[in-house]
Amino acid sequence: MKLASLSNGTRDGKLLVVSRDLQRAAPADQVAPTLQAALDDWSRAEPQLRELAARLEANQLGGEAFAFRAAEVESPLPRAYHWVDGSAYVNHVELVRKARGAEMPDSFWHDPLVYQGGSDDFLPPVGEVPFISEEFGIDIEAETAVITDDVPMGTTAADAGSHIRLLMLVNDWTCRNLIPAELAKGFGFYQGKPATSFSPVAVTPDELGDDYQNGTLNRPLVTYLNGELFGRPECGVDMTFNFEQLIEHVTKTRNLCAGTIIGSGTVSNYDRSLGSSCVAEKRMLETIEHGAPKTPFMSFGDTVRIEMTDAQGNSIFGAIEQTVVAAG
Amino acid sequence: MKLASLSNGTRDGKLLVVSRDLQRAAPADQVAPTLQAALDDWSRAEPQLRELAARLEANQLGGEAFAFRAAEVESPLPRAYHWVDGSAYVNHVELVRKARGAEMPDSFWHDPLVYQGGSDDFLPPVGEVPFISEEFGIDIEAETAVITDDVPMGTTAADAGSHIRLLMLVNDWTCRNLIPAELAKGFGFYQGKPATSFSPVAVTPDELGDDYQNGTLNRPLVTYLNGELFGRPECGVDMTFNFEQLIEHVTKTRNLCAGTIIGSGTVSNYDRSLGSSCVAEKRMLETIEHGAPKTPFMSFGDTVRIEMTDAQGNSIFGAIEQTVVAAG
Repeated sequence: MKLASLSNGTRDGKLLVVSRDLQRAAPADQVAPTLQAALDDWSRAEPQLRELAARLEANQLGGEAFAFRAAEVESPLPRAYHWVDGSAYVNHVELVRKARGAEMPDSFWHDPLVYQGGSDDFLPPVGEVPFISEEFGIDIEAETAVITDDVPMGTTAADAGSHIRLLMLVNDWTCRNLIPAELAKGFGFYQGKPATSFSPVAVTPDELGDDYQNGTLNRPLVTYLNGELFGRPECGVDMTFNFEQLIEHVTKTRNLCAGTIIGSGTVSNYDRSLGSSCVAEKRMLETIEHGAPKTPFMSFGDTVRIEMTDAQGNSIFGAIEQTVVAAG
Repeated sequence: MKLASLSNGTRDGKLLVVSRDLQRAAPADQVAPTLQAALDDWSRAEPQLRELAARLEANQLGGEAFAFRAAEVESPLPRAYHWVDGSAYVNHVELVRKARGAEMPDSFWHDPLVYQGGSDDFLPPVGEVPFISEEFGIDIEAETAVITDDVPMGTTAADAGSHIRLLMLVNDWTCRNLIPAELAKGFGFYQGKPATSFSPVAVTPDELGDDYQNGTLNRPLVTYLNGELFGRPECGVDMTFNFEQLIEHVTKTRNLCAGTIIGSGTVSNYDRSLGSSCVAEKRMLETIEHGAPKTPFMSFGDTVRIEMTDAQGNSIFGAIEQTVVAAG
C-alpha cells in the first residue's frame, strides 16, 4: 500500500491512497482525514485503507480516482510529532573524522549516533526550498526513513520490526557552514538542520517484497545534482545499524508516539565508485585525495533529484525534486 | 486567559478554559477540540476562548463549569510538533564548565545554546514518572516556557514578542549519567532527555501583568524535592537571553509551526542562596566547595513540586507534582 497527503491548504493535507505505479490516486479521507489520524488509529484504519488501495489497483473506484502528481502533494506527514535521524552508515562518519584528521571512537560501531530534527514544518517533496543565504553552505543528505506506530520505552531490536508501518525517502537539508560552531557548543545541531523533505509517497514494508528485509532497504538510492548522477550507493550495504537497532536505541528512555519518523542518515558505501549522498562527503573525499575540496556546496538555482527504483526500474516512492532558492 | 487539556482518553485531551484562581474550569471544545487546534486557528479561536473565559470568571456558565483538578489534566499540549529548549541562564552553563575545570567560551554570552527535545509524548503535570533504571542519574530541570504561533524564518527579537501566545512552567526530566557519553559523541542529547512535563495550565501573557515583560517572567520559580524547599531563583534575574532573543535564534534557518514550545533552560541565579532548579547544579556547587558532590540524584519514590505564585501568593500555572517510579 502506498499513501500520500494531497496539498489542500490545510496544515496536514488530505490522505490519499496511491497506485503501485504512482499513476493514480484516490481520496482516503473517509477512512482518516490525514495520515497522522490514520497512524493514531492504525488497527482500525489499515484494513480499510488496504481495501481502498486494492480497489484503486483494480480500477474499481471510477470517478473517485484521479491522476497522481507528485507536485500536488505535501510530505506524507506534512508535520510530525517526532523526527529523529540516525547516522547508521558509520563509514560516512569515519570519513568525516578522517577528513579532519581525527580518530573515530570504536564505540561508534556499536552505539548509534542520532539527532532530533525539526518536525513541525516539513517541505513538500517537489518544489522550491528557500534559504536566507548561500553562505550557510547548503547541502543535501539523501536517506531512507521509517514511520512507526506507538513504540513503548525499552523495546528491543528483536521486537522493533513489527512497529514499522511505512517507509519513505528523505532529503535532510543541511547548512554545513553553520554546523562547526554549533557542534563546538556541545548541544548538537539546530540551526544547521533546516526543514526536511520526504518522498511523495510512504509505502508499507510488504509493498517492497525482498527489497526490504530485517529493517533495511536493499536498493540503491540515486541522487542527481543539477541533472547529473551524483551517487547511487546501496542502502543495504554498509548500514551499520538497521532500523530495528535504531528503534532500540531511541526507546532506551522514551516511548515513541505513532507517526514517529526515524531516518537512516546519509546513505554511504565503502565502495566510493558509487558516489555520495551529500556534497560534504564528496568534498571530504576530495580533501583526502587532493588536500582540498573542489565541489562547491549548493547555490540558488541548483536542483536535486532523489529516487529509488525497484529491480524493474519502477519508482517506488516517487522522486524528491527540489530547487534551492533565495528566501523572501 | 488560562487554558488546560482535560485527560479524556484521547491523544490530545479536551480543551478547557480555567478560572484565574484555578478553582473552576469549563469545556472549550465547542471553540476548538484541542489546544493544538486552537493554536492552528488562533485568530478565530482566541476571541471566542476569551469570551468563554470571561463568562467562567463571571460565574455565567452554570452547569458547564466544574471544579478544576490538576490531577485530571494532561500537559496543556499533550504532544506538540516542536519543543526546543534553550539554556538561557548562562551562569548555570558557566558553573557546569567550572565544576569540570573547563573554561566557557565567551561566545556563550551572545550566542544561545538550544537543543531540540522529544515532543511526541509529554508527561501529565501531576502523577508518576517512570524510569527504567535509577542508574540513569534521574534529575529535574525547573524552567519556564512559551508557546508560539506560526513564526517565519528570519524573525528578529524585536518582532518576536507578538508571536508568544502562552506561557507555562516546565520540568525537563534529565538522565544525567547518560549525558556525558552522548555529549562525547558530538550530536547533543537524545537518550539523556526523556519525556518532559509542563504545568497544568498555560496562560496568556496579558494574564501575568507586570510579571511578564520583554520576553521574561519576573517571578521566582519554586522547587521542592521530597517536600523540602530546593530552590526559588528569580526568573527575571540573570536570564541572559529572553524568549524574544531565543525566537530570533531558532528561526535563523527555519519557520516555527503554531504550537512550538520554547524553554528557558534551568532557571539559575548567581545568588546561590536562592538554591537551584536541578540536582546537578547543587552537586556542582558542592563539588566546587567540597571537592565532591553530596546530594544524590533522584530515586524511585522521590517527589518534586514546581510552582510559581504571583505577588499575592496565588499559583499562576498550577503546580507540577510528580513522583519518580520504576517503569513497567
